[in-house]
Amino acid sequence: MSTTATFSALNPATEQSITGVFPQHTHQDVDLAAKAAQEIAKSYRQTSPAQRSRLLQAIADCLEEQREAIVERANLESALPLARLNGELSRTTAQLRLFADVVEGGLWQEAIFDTANPNREPLPKADIRRQNIAIGPVAVFGASNFPLAFSTAGGDTASALAAGCPVIVKGHPAHPGTSEIVAQCIAKALKSLELPQAIFTLLQGTTHELGQSVVIHPAIKAVGFTGSIHGGRALFDLAQGRPEPIPFYGELGASNPVFILPKRMELHSQSLAEEYLLSMNMGCGQFCTKPAVVFVTKGNETEQFLQTVRQGIAAQQGQTMLTCGIKRNYLEQSEKRAQQQGLTRTQSTPEQGVPAILFETTSNDWRNNPQWQEEIFGPQSIVVVCENDQDMLELSQSLEGSLTATIHAEQDDYQSAQRLISELEEIAGRIVFNGWPTGVEVSYAMVHGGPYPASTMPASTSVGAEAIKRWLRPVAYQSIPEALLPDALKTSNPLNVRRSVDGKTA
Amino acid sequence: MSTTATFSALNPATEQSITGVFPQHTHQDVDLAAKAAQEIAKSYRQTSPAQRSRLLQAIADCLEEQREAIVERANLESALPLARLNGELSRTTAQLRLFADVVEGGLWQEAIFDTANPNREPLPKADIRRQNIAIGPVAVFGASNFPLAFSTAGGDTASALAAGCPVIVKGHPAHPGTSEIVAQCIAKALKSLELPQAIFTLLQGTTHELGQSVVIHPAIKAVGFTGSIHGGRALFDLAQGRPEPIPFYGELGASNPVFILPKRMELHSQSLAEEYLLSMNMGCGQFCTKPAVVFVTKGNETEQFLQTVRQGIAAQQGQTMLTCGIKRNYLEQSEKRAQQQGLTRTQSTPEQGVPAILFETTSNDWRNNPQWQEEIFGPQSIVVVCENDQDMLELSQSLEGSLTATIHAEQDDYQSAQRLISELEEIAGRIVFNGWPTGVEVSYAMVHGGPYPASTMPASTSVGAEAIKRWLRPVAYQSIPEALLPDALKTSNPLNVRRSVDGKTA
Repeated sequence: MSTTATFSALNPATEQSITGVFPQHTHQDVDLAAKAAQEIAKSYRQTSPAQRSRLLQAIADCLEEQREAIVERANLESALPLARLNGELSRTTAQLRLFADVVEGGLWQEAIFDTANPNREPLPKADIRRQNIAIGPVAVFGASNFPLAFSTAGGDTASALAAGCPVIVKGHPAHPGTSEIVAQCIAKALKSLELPQAIFTLLQGTTHELGQSVVIHPAIKAVGFTGSIHGGRALFDLAQGRPEPIPFYGELGASNPVFILPKRMELHSQSLAEEYLLSMNMGCGQFCTKPAVVFVTKGNETEQFLQTVRQGIAAQQGQTMLTCGIKRNYLEQSEKRAQQQGLTRTQSTPEQGVPAILFETTSNDWRNNPQWQEEIFGPQSIVVVCENDQDMLELSQSLEGSLTATIHAEQDDYQSAQRLISELEEIAGRIVFNGWPTGVEVSYAMVHGGPYPASTMPASTSVGAEAIKRWLRPVAYQSIPEALLPDALKTSNPLNVRRSVDGKTA
Repeated sequence: MSTTATFSALNPATEQSITGVFPQHTHQDVDLAAKAAQEIAKSYRQTSPAQRSRLLQAIADCLEEQREAIVERANLESALPLARLNGELSRTTAQLRLFADVVEGGLWQEAIFDTANPNREPLPKADIRRQNIAIGPVAVFGASNFPLAFSTAGGDTASALAAGCPVIVKGHPAHPGTSEIVAQCIAKALKSLELPQAIFTLLQGTTHELGQSVVIHPAIKAVGFTGSIHGGRALFDLAQGRPEPIPFYGELGASNPVFILPKRMELHSQSLAEEYLLSMNMGCGQFCTKPAVVFVTKGNETEQFLQTVRQGIAAQQGQTMLTCGIKRNYLEQSEKRAQQQGLTRTQSTPEQGVPAILFETTSNDWRNNPQWQEEIFGPQSIVVVCENDQDMLELSQSLEGSLTATIHAEQDDYQSAQRLISELEEIAGRIVFNGWPTGVEVSYAMVHGGPYPASTMPASTSVGAEAIKRWLRPVAYQSIPEALLPDALKTSNPLNVRRSVDGKTA
């Protein structure tokens, strides 16, 4: 690589540099990596599912071996607690192993066959067989808030490698040391399987230009991004403005509205308040599924709920945010919001770290301030007190796209809940019932996406088995003889792939 | 509607106006239609698959009833022959009936279940169920070259209505009378099923502004477009530049390269020449799958092939193009290309209509003129004579995205054919073997798409059963009780939808 400049990581708790220097990669490094990825894209795409499954497992194994070093470094760089990071590492390896299963399972290939009919009138019908193939080299942007599960070997990388795409990760500058240890694990796994190193490259740096030059490189065929609306939209615009626009899978933020219906509140105001406090403060409110707005209806139990929440907020211990920049934004934006009419604020006064903040407002003020839907990243949330169910239902109709929407309801509330579900389907990727949105299962049915700005591609998910589809495109093969067909489509079915034939699954 | 200005259609054969005036719809009409569509989007999305299936069948029935009027008007407006238009109408009704089957089949819902495990450590696992739902109101742009199958009740409309999306068609100004009769059929079908008229609106007009205001209307949630790179890219850019960007499924053009390997040429030079002439001249070369470039290798049989093609081109009867504007472009662009060094031209000299044009060049000149990949819409094609298989293979590596790529090969050619397939997979949506790309089957396995500019969304197809997925997005339902679950996800499975559970299809 042609790099000479370097940078160091900052410990957000001490605001001091951490030992270790990392290369400031340049657009020449991007060009080298992208061309190398392009060079081996075809051979990697044509590896067997079994081979790619072994690669993912080898990466997971190596991450486990390096667990202590990774978690320790990530803790220094992100200020996230060790227990949380240990959990996140387990999630990351589980995710790699899930995609190992997914790629061997073969459903991702979506093999679909049309049977030939040479006697059809007026024209004969051809034998057509369709499969999904890898889209080509993929760029992945590491996220600050999940230094493991949404970064170097996170869900985007795991699903793209499973699909058969080489990956270039633009590491998040907040945790370069973590990224480097993880990248070394991937390099080691590639080597152990005698696969080319160009299948995976980590590029590091602190400038916006680095990420931009990755997105506009002609060899890159798709992008995975998790981060802010501001940064994500700028990269999305670049991706769409290329001579050849490419799919940009960006997860840009969400308010994750929660609706608590009256009977539920009546029976559970205390536990709802406690769960809410936990969910909004988890990871210092730095989850993309943090409940940023909770709709409740007027009443005595709601008053008790609010009382408990206020007390809980005031008593919150201070937590350290991921970076000094994120902390500054959080404090500035919260302060700005607090100045606006129609909001009352409760906040903690920690000796260290940032305060947790609760805003309260009425449905009327909420209606007049659509800008309050904008997520403030950090331990802050708004409770909107509605007049009644109908008022709440009306508010549900003017919400922006969101990763999740949550309904709390008892049997007596089902009529309103039913109407809420049919509204919330239109704005959310996932609807949670009598639970809280934080905690995203890495599973087959998960949808982590939704209408913009939750996702720039509302038909996709960035978590769960279906995330592999972001890196695939279909190809149809018409009248191709058995000897020349790809393995997944051969009549002899050597890969034992599930097919559907003439509209029917076998 | 607030419209007062009108326009008439032009007969491209006579260049005279055809009887009948049509409204010049304005942005107010767009706003009314889009808001009306938004208003009923939820209720239409929640109609049963059986109901939407009946709607599609009722539209097909009505088109059949109006066959004579539709075909006659389309012939006047497009100059396409009656036989072709009769075939296209049959294709259009077959397409509607295919989507009636698809929507009732239920595979489009992609129901995926995770089984709950309350005893899992460290955290319980929730019941999560995922389905696809309609994305919302869809805008469809009618195409000039298929006044029926890719226009008012064409594949985009049929698949969007099947998915549960209201549709606003921006009719192509070349065939407003055809669009109007077809739209009346859709209105009649909606009425017969007591469904709101706002589910479908036809907007007509001759200005670019009309299409633009449809694409930027906030109620529109996705766009289907078939047409030129120039017009399509401009609308794509608008769709991506919206405050809420939306999926834009544009099919913008393709060169549809054909590769004839030496042994195949040796055995079939005569029939290959005849088939090529048919394929490139079909519909006056106004097919998106027209073979615009054919790669052959040097040799005596290739010389015979070229001889036959030249004679065939010179003897072509003139055909009338779809519009005067398309004719002007065709003549201008062909003339401009003919002036370029390295091409030899053969052309017909018809008394009426436009000439068919054959260009010939060498692999070397082709390499130096990448602009020749650009499609010229009309009966024009280039033959590139390569030194040998290897030379041909190298050229296959620098092709732009295309709807199709075709290989002609005998057993002796299989080694080269195998290598070609693995190159062409990367640029084409469909690979055709020993056939010709024109003729797109409307079936389960069809892929009509490919890397840009074949499609602005390379993971999609605009023809065939899978085209319905363009208008869907996934939603996950977490821990929702049976009574509140959508029908497709209820444990009792009233719609008899196929599900996969924990990664396994039942």
